[in-house]
Amino acid sequence: MANITKKVSWSSRADDSAAAQAGEATPLLNGSEQERHTSRQQSGGGSICQIGRLTTVELEEEITADEESIRGQTREIPHNEKLLSLKYEGLDYDNIENQLFLEEERRMSPMGFRCLEVSRWVVCGLIGFLTGLIACFIDIAVENLAGLKYEVIKRNIENFTETGGLSISLILWGGFNAAVVMLGSILVAFFEPIAGGSGIPQIKCYLNGVKIPRVVRLKTLVVKVFGVICSVVGGLAVGKEGPMIHSGAVVAAGVSQGRSTSLKRDFKMFEYFRRDTEKRDFVSAGAAAGVSAAFGAPVGGVLFSLEEGASFWNQMLTWRIFFASMISTFTLNFFLSIYNKKTGELSSPGLINFGRFESESVEYYLYEIPLFIAMGAIGGLLGALFNFLNYWITIFRIRYIHRPCLQVMEAMLVAAVTAAVSFTMIYFSNDCQPLAPENSEEYPLQLFCSDGEYNAMATAFFNTPERSVRSLFHNQPGSYNPLTLGLFTLTYFFLACWTYGLAVSAGVFIPSLLIGAAWGRLCGILLASVSPNASIWADPGKYALIGAAAQLGGIVRMTLSLTVIMVEATGNVTYGLPIMLVLMTAKIVGDYFIEGLYDIHIKLQSVPFLHWEAPATSHWLTAREVMSSPVTCLNRIEKVGTIVDTLSNTSTNHNGFPVVVESAGNDEPGKLCGLILRSQLIVLLKHKVFVELVRSRLTQRKLQLKDFRDAYPRFPPIQSIHVSQDERECMMDLTEFMNPTPYTVPQDTSLPRVFKLFRALGLRHLVVVDDENRVVGLVTRKDLARYHMGKHGLEELQLAQT
Amino acid sequence: MANITKKVSWSSRADDSAAAQAGEATPLLNGSEQERHTSRQQSGGGSICQIGRLTTVELEEEITADEESIRGQTREIPHNEKLLSLKYEGLDYDNIENQLFLEEERRMSPMGFRCLEVSRWVVCGLIGFLTGLIACFIDIAVENLAGLKYEVIKRNIENFTETGGLSISLILWGGFNAAVVMLGSILVAFFEPIAGGSGIPQIKCYLNGVKIPRVVRLKTLVVKVFGVICSVVGGLAVGKEGPMIHSGAVVAAGVSQGRSTSLKRDFKMFEYFRRDTEKRDFVSAGAAAGVSAAFGAPVGGVLFSLEEGASFWNQMLTWRIFFASMISTFTLNFFLSIYNKKTGELSSPGLINFGRFESESVEYYLYEIPLFIAMGAIGGLLGALFNFLNYWITIFRIRYIHRPCLQVMEAMLVAAVTAAVSFTMIYFSNDCQPLAPENSEEYPLQLFCSDGEYNAMATAFFNTPERSVRSLFHNQPGSYNPLTLGLFTLTYFFLACWTYGLAVSAGVFIPSLLIGAAWGRLCGILLASVSPNASIWADPGKYALIGAAAQLGGIVRMTLSLTVIMVEATGNVTYGLPIMLVLMTAKIVGDYFIEGLYDIHIKLQSVPFLHWEAPATSHWLTAREVMSSPVTCLNRIEKVGTIVDTLSNTSTNHNGFPVVVESAGNDEPGKLCGLILRSQLIVLLKHKVFVELVRSRLTQRKLQLKDFRDAYPRFPPIQSIHVSQDERECMMDLTEFMNPTPYTVPQDTSLPRVFKLFRALGLRHLVVVDDENRVVGLVTRKDLARYHMGKHGLEELQLAQT
Repeated sequence: MANITKKVSWSSRADDSAAAQAGEATPLLNGSEQERHTSRQQSGGGSICQIGRLTTVELEEEITADEESIRGQTREIPHNEKLLSLKYEGLDYDNIENQLFLEEERRMSPMGFRCLEVSRWVVCGLIGFLTGLIACFIDIAVENLAGLKYEVIKRNIENFTETGGLSISLILWGGFNAAVVMLGSILVAFFEPIAGGSGIPQIKCYLNGVKIPRVVRLKTLVVKVFGVICSVVGGLAVGKEGPMIHSGAVVAAGVSQGRSTSLKRDFKMFEYFRRDTEKRDFVSAGAAAGVSAAFGAPVGGVLFSLEEGASFWNQMLTWRIFFASMISTFTLNFFLSIYNKKTGELSSPGLINFGRFESESVEYYLYEIPLFIAMGAIGGLLGALFNFLNYWITIFRIRYIHRPCLQVMEAMLVAAVTAAVSFTMIYFSNDCQPLAPENSEEYPLQLFCSDGEYNAMATAFFNTPERSVRSLFHNQPGSYNPLTLGLFTLTYFFLACWTYGLAVSAGVFIPSLLIGAAWGRLCGILLASVSPNASIWADPGKYALIGAAAQLGGIVRMTLSLTVIMVEATGNVTYGLPIMLVLMTAKIVGDYFIEGLYDIHIKLQSVPFLHWEAPATSHWLTAREVMSSPVTCLNRIEKVGTIVDTLSNTSTNHNGFPVVVESAGNDEPGKLCGLILRSQLIVLLKHKVFVELVRSRLTQRKLQLKDFRDAYPRFPPIQSIHVSQDERECMMDLTEFMNPTPYTVPQDTSLPRVFKLFRALGLRHLVVVDDENRVVGLVTRKDLARYHMGKHGLEELQLAQT
Repeated sequence: MANITKKVSWSSRADDSAAAQAGEATPLLNGSEQERHTSRQQSGGGSICQIGRLTTVELEEEITADEESIRGQTREIPHNEKLLSLKYEGLDYDNIENQLFLEEERRMSPMGFRCLEVSRWVVCGLIGFLTGLIACFIDIAVENLAGLKYEVIKRNIENFTETGGLSISLILWGGFNAAVVMLGSILVAFFEPIAGGSGIPQIKCYLNGVKIPRVVRLKTLVVKVFGVICSVVGGLAVGKEGPMIHSGAVVAAGVSQGRSTSLKRDFKMFEYFRRDTEKRDFVSAGAAAGVSAAFGAPVGGVLFSLEEGASFWNQMLTWRIFFASMISTFTLNFFLSIYNKKTGELSSPGLINFGRFESESVEYYLYEIPLFIAMGAIGGLLGALFNFLNYWITIFRIRYIHRPCLQVMEAMLVAAVTAAVSFTMIYFSNDCQPLAPENSEEYPLQLFCSDGEYNAMATAFFNTPERSVRSLFHNQPGSYNPLTLGLFTLTYFFLACWTYGLAVSAGVFIPSLLIGAAWGRLCGILLASVSPNASIWADPGKYALIGAAAQLGGIVRMTLSLTVIMVEATGNVTYGLPIMLVLMTAKIVGDYFIEGLYDIHIKLQSVPFLHWEAPATSHWLTAREVMSSPVTCLNRIEKVGTIVDTLSNTSTNHNGFPVVVESAGNDEPGKLCGLILRSQLIVLLKHKVFVELVRSRLTQRKLQLKDFRDAYPRFPPIQSIHVSQDERECMMDLTEFMNPTPYTVPQDTSLPRVFKLFRALGLRHLVVVDDENRVVGLVTRKDLARYHMGKHGLEELQLAQT
């Protein structure tokens, strides 16, 4: 039993041995202790921010070292929305303009730059093409497999409807679903957990500048693609659209680097793009291409990328993103047209096709606008409820269902329950509708209906969600009775809410649209029955569309990009204004209660996510209070031993080090002359770029930018680099490799000002200097992300090592 | 006759008396001398940039002081694309976080911030509403007046067709046009020249961060609105859409300030928004609202604003812009529906309505894509030709037609010629088409056609351009014969080219669309006649649309926003991909020859326009070479006399002054401790905020932020402020008012890095410091805009005082 002062500080150099000791013991803030900590915070009514040096959060807790080590070994539970995890690194959007870089640029001719520009376009084209192909593959696979499944089950049900014994059909359906979902869930839970969910929160983080481990790897893509096929075929309340965004991003990250680290293949192409700046631009393009392929919405894709990611809007970049989007939707369209034997007819631009809203039915009148706004408010409320429930389910999952096999079992359970509920609903429904002559339903279930009729509940449940949405939008007025729609909304709402966050790869867009379309259509029907002349204008399909927009907006809280996506997916701009009003209302109403679904999940992962602006009331906080200090600085010519020790210090685990001019030996901090990254130092150490004790300076191996690019992005850990005792005594000259002009701010700069600089330039490290240009601190993403507006004014999040 | 060394330097402090003397004589580089200078430059094959201190351009020219003073009195001719004018000031997107500001923020509660946010939304709503109203007014006025005109002339022509003597009709037509155009031209030329043209180049500059004098004043708006009505009614080859963007921007600048300086009314509202940062955001919203009202394209409006202006993409800002756009199109739509007696039917969202493209005719096939791309290339070529011709016409106008009465006469001439050419074309055309039963043409001219037929040429010429475009898009195949279209394209091309740049307020969008639609339709007809089965898919309306996009893209070179505008204006997203491909091709082809029309006009105005990125090959230029130096610095506590003298120094005319800590009396530059603007100093001087020789410090009047806001944006010139000899001896303490943490860069920072910082944060002044934090230079917009990629690598523009 030892009383340890826990110093949970990310970047304060643990100089004193006591702190170092604590650091060695990796002060995790998880498990029960974390909860205690949280509850203390919550009972305090939210921790109001204190003025002063807040960089080291001291928690004096009486814990045993044993307990801690045990906890360290158990699976980490880093999820708490009041913490910021330290395990996430930032991406560096800033160019390191060191001498190597400048030399390379100098050697490059204007022609060379033009070639680079062309290759950027080529890469974007490739990204769009491959993303389109993947979307096409998913679509065809799902269509065939789901078709097979529904065919088999339908025949089975038809057999047993006459003879009795429909429970066997139920078991067949449930069993089939559970088996398929198990497959997908095993892939995700055991092979690549990051491929779970829709991937949109992860891509949002990546575009925001946070490196999420393994998120853009090939393996993730493979698991994602097969996972989503399994989830959709397994009949879960999920869509295949969200994962496309993640898939596009992975494709982009892979193609733009011209190699695959997983496959150990280097095509020696696009080596110039092997750095965070370029890669992030391409990932934006990939995400946009994904949206574009999913919804047939190229402009919506561009706006999604920009809304979620880019802080610096660059015209050329935007055009390239647009190009990738266009190619993606075009590729999908083209290959699907071949598959559908209508080669060259470019009429299905996305995975989901809302179908064409014909001009006669799309008109709306001024007096409908208040109705739309009311529906937006309902969407906001239902969305908030959805998010709230999902939040608690997620908390529950984090606490109790974190072992892969449990996760697989939960997924199977959900699959079976979904089938059972669907079956029950269909079974007890007596909403029989006459079969239209053209037979627009794919799998009309007759069940207990008389001949020439079909079960309307089955069109909603016994179908892929995309088809159900389309039916709700376009089926003739009268195709559904209100009770059917109400029951369907209710059950599907809870099913979808339970499903999101399972260890399967699946999106929440389509279920949201489906829920919204159902209650929207219900609204339309009710309106027509209440007001006598409403039946003229209250087209149920129109209200289904508005409801779908409201529900989706209430859950994900996007506005501009979602408006455009919806408009592009409906193929008609007439609804632009109503959809926009609905989405805005849904967002305002929803935000009053709880954040958007993606933001909730980002917060639960404790990701240091930077919003668009610093909290409004934070002008009185200055860089001095925000920054981490003291900072580990390196001399321009530094001893190898010192560098190795600094890098090996697990308690601080810094990633960027200001380089200073050697001071005259006293304690005074040195003048800033550059900034060097951990990754650069690792490469330097690996190549043993040592000044052989000054005199043999000429023998120093000339390092190229290529060496850094080859190592990117998976730099080896410092432990893997062997440095002998002799070498430890050597010196390293960092002048050539450091960034000689890092951005700096004076100590008195206010937080919003620091924030703006950091965000606008996409920095990873911002050096704080005094008026003598001496380093006094370092601002990183976590220092800024800590502050946020709570209910009681400015709040500060705690930093945690997990 | 004196040999004067002309120091054309914007910010080098003219300490030596000789230079000061030269400065007093205001070294203008205009008139013939300027041309000589230019020709010298051009003969040198473009001035290749030199390394070293390039901030002072020394021109030793033997000129007489008399000559110069005369030249100084003549109307200045500041137009040269190889020069950068010094007369333009920058806008400051950076917040001045001085003590006053911080105190105000500190006093403000979270509730206060929320109120601010709400009032931002209210302002945006108002902007949208008023912009929509203005659009509505213009539309109704033009429709009625033009209707009246065509009615009268038509009757006249019909009378004279039978009796002979059509030349009287011609004279009537030409005379009427010339009279109306004269009215509009007088308004523009004599009252507000800045209201001429489409206003888009000016708004582009404003959003880029350049203050164009008088561009967002109420008077400009009034002249613009009446000017555009006159131009369109006067039958010029112009559109009323471009000016809407300017109008929206003026509305925004007015509404957001809560007062009108012209009308001397202060509503005491929105005082918080009286600074460049906020105003510029609102102006973006206004421009977007303008686009939205013009084309019924709210998303296109947002993208236009972002593409042209915002370097820092902010989600909340974007939504507000979107909101303003939506309200604007909605307002227009609503009031037009009332006017058209179809209250509540929201079907005409923009000034120009391309009409609905029905689903059957909108389909396209894969093999049409190459055709579209070819049309894009044609559009690019024709656009380049258009721009090239217009460039030379503009140069001619700058040299010879710069007196207002000449400008009015030219405008009248163009109006008369337009009428004459139109008449001739109609007269000699023998393209008679049968009148459709539903009579879709507004003013079908029978002329020499037999009964029941009308003259097809007249539908193109004897109509407002908007209507002509719509006819070209939607009239039945066979409504025009190829010869008519060819002749029309040819004549209208030259007319439009001549018209753009006249001293009338008018846009180039519609004429471009019209030219493109004409030759596009021609392409469609030719295709159908060449290939036997092409008549099935080669719908002339579709090809007219593609041609219109190609031509417009070739002239203005927008891509993303234009794609979306076109898609929204057609009301159908199916054409998204072809339009995008066409616009991209047109841009690539066009850019190969000459810049876009707006960029040409911006360059001819010598505006220091910052592009998105620094030239690619400029990494070897550092801040040291780019910056202006030496810099006029002020001490933290400075003598009033010194400040007045500094501000009165017309040779330098600085707008920002680094504030330094008093150095120990030697020549060494002081350490930077802040930055103060000319405008702030003026307000301080006006309020006589003097430290009465240190001791009576308490009596110093406490200045509020309100005082600065009241003076914004028309700060009085220094000459208008009287400072007595006694007061000159007083001291001023700048500590409270200066920005204490200006952004700085070290001297070795590369140009792209400086550029990125400057552009991303929308700075006006960027202080360059050495490693002791001493001021060594100042980078402003002109220092950065000087460098651009020419045909022969990096080129540097000269700075000129005009």
